[in-house]
Amino acid sequence: MYLRTLDAAAGEGRSTISSSAIARAFGFTDAQVRRDLACLGQTGRPGVGYQPVTLAARIRKSLSLDRTWNLAIVGVGKIGAALMGYPRFAGGGFRVTAAFDADPDLIGQDIAGTRIEPLSQLERSVREANVDLAVLAVPGPVAQSVATDLVNAGIRGILNFAPVRLHVDVPVQPIDLSRSLEQLAFEVSSTA
Amino acid sequence: MYLRTLDAAAGEGRSTISSSAIARAFGFTDAQVRRDLACLGQTGRPGVGYQPVTLAARIRKSLSLDRTWNLAIVGVGKIGAALMGYPRFAGGGFRVTAAFDADPDLIGQDIAGTRIEPLSQLERSVREANVDLAVLAVPGPVAQSVATDLVNAGIRGILNFAPVRLHVDVPVQPIDLSRSLEQLAFEVSSTA
Repeated sequence: MYLRTLDAAAGEGRSTISSSAIARAFGFTDAQVRRDLACLGQTGRPGVGYQPVTLAARIRKSLSLDRTWNLAIVGVGKIGAALMGYPRFAGGGFRVTAAFDADPDLIGQDIAGTRIEPLSQLERSVREANVDLAVLAVPGPVAQSVATDLVNAGIRGILNFAPVRLHVDVPVQPIDLSRSLEQLAFEVSSTA
Repeated sequence: MYLRTLDAAAGEGRSTISSSAIARAFGFTDAQVRRDLACLGQTGRPGVGYQPVTLAARIRKSLSLDRTWNLAIVGVGKIGAALMGYPRFAGGGFRVTAAFDADPDLIGQDIAGTRIEPLSQLERSVREANVDLAVLAVPGPVAQSVATDLVNAGIRGILNFAPVRLHVDVPVQPIDLSRSLEQLAFEVSSTA
């Protein structure tokens, strides 16, 4: 959230931003913002504020985002295809370097500069393309088996869109769009 | 998670499923599963298990998912367009009934059976199409203003893909794909 706010301020050409302006952006208190940012060392000047570009770089470094992470898109359905050219991934240091699907009609197609390869090529191509992280967007029933293959191929983390809990030895970030929508519908019903 | 597991079991044609099979699917204990499902009343039979179809229907009812929710897609970029024909939304009782964008090249186009309308039509069309929930996938800088318009038009909840915290009086479910990927990269770096 800090990065989003700082990047937006930098994008607007602002050379400084106050802790209260940052706090307003996401409903924290000034004190919380100053406390959080103090963890990074001396980053702001009292009465002046923070330099958005410098502070964003400092946060990126502390989060290991000051490098390029190579992504594989695994499963090129609607979501997978959308993420192949997702501008906010590219802007954040993430680069799609490989894509895989089981559908013969998709294999060989080129989306946003990346050719879709057959799943059978996964292990070899993941190694060759130096892929760090996988975006798993395959159907639920095959997700665990593909995830196991990905980890065996050397993938170090998975962004999981499949509606199953994965059992793997690497970090997983689950994103279940249907569940989020169901949760929203439930909250709406509860507050009505 | 229960719904995913029960729907999968029903899809495989199973007439019963045990609490331990459900528990295995997402790493709970049998006891936790039985306790959770007991909240819905008498749903299973000792030594026999649960009927996937019946139990899924009971859960859907308790979550207000036993009806159709009309969705508007607001912002038809890569993610918005992908969600217009997203099969898992349709399968879960969510139906896209309207779509909006500011881009003249997109307006008038038809994606998965829904015509893209100009943002200026938002208030009128949201009322006419009886839209319940909005999927907000517009750029960050305009997200708050569009969200305000949506709530004024009668939208009751927002699935928010824009990288900003919205200040509105309806439930919001945020989904920040870049943030999830950054979080994943950070976890991978921390465990390396």
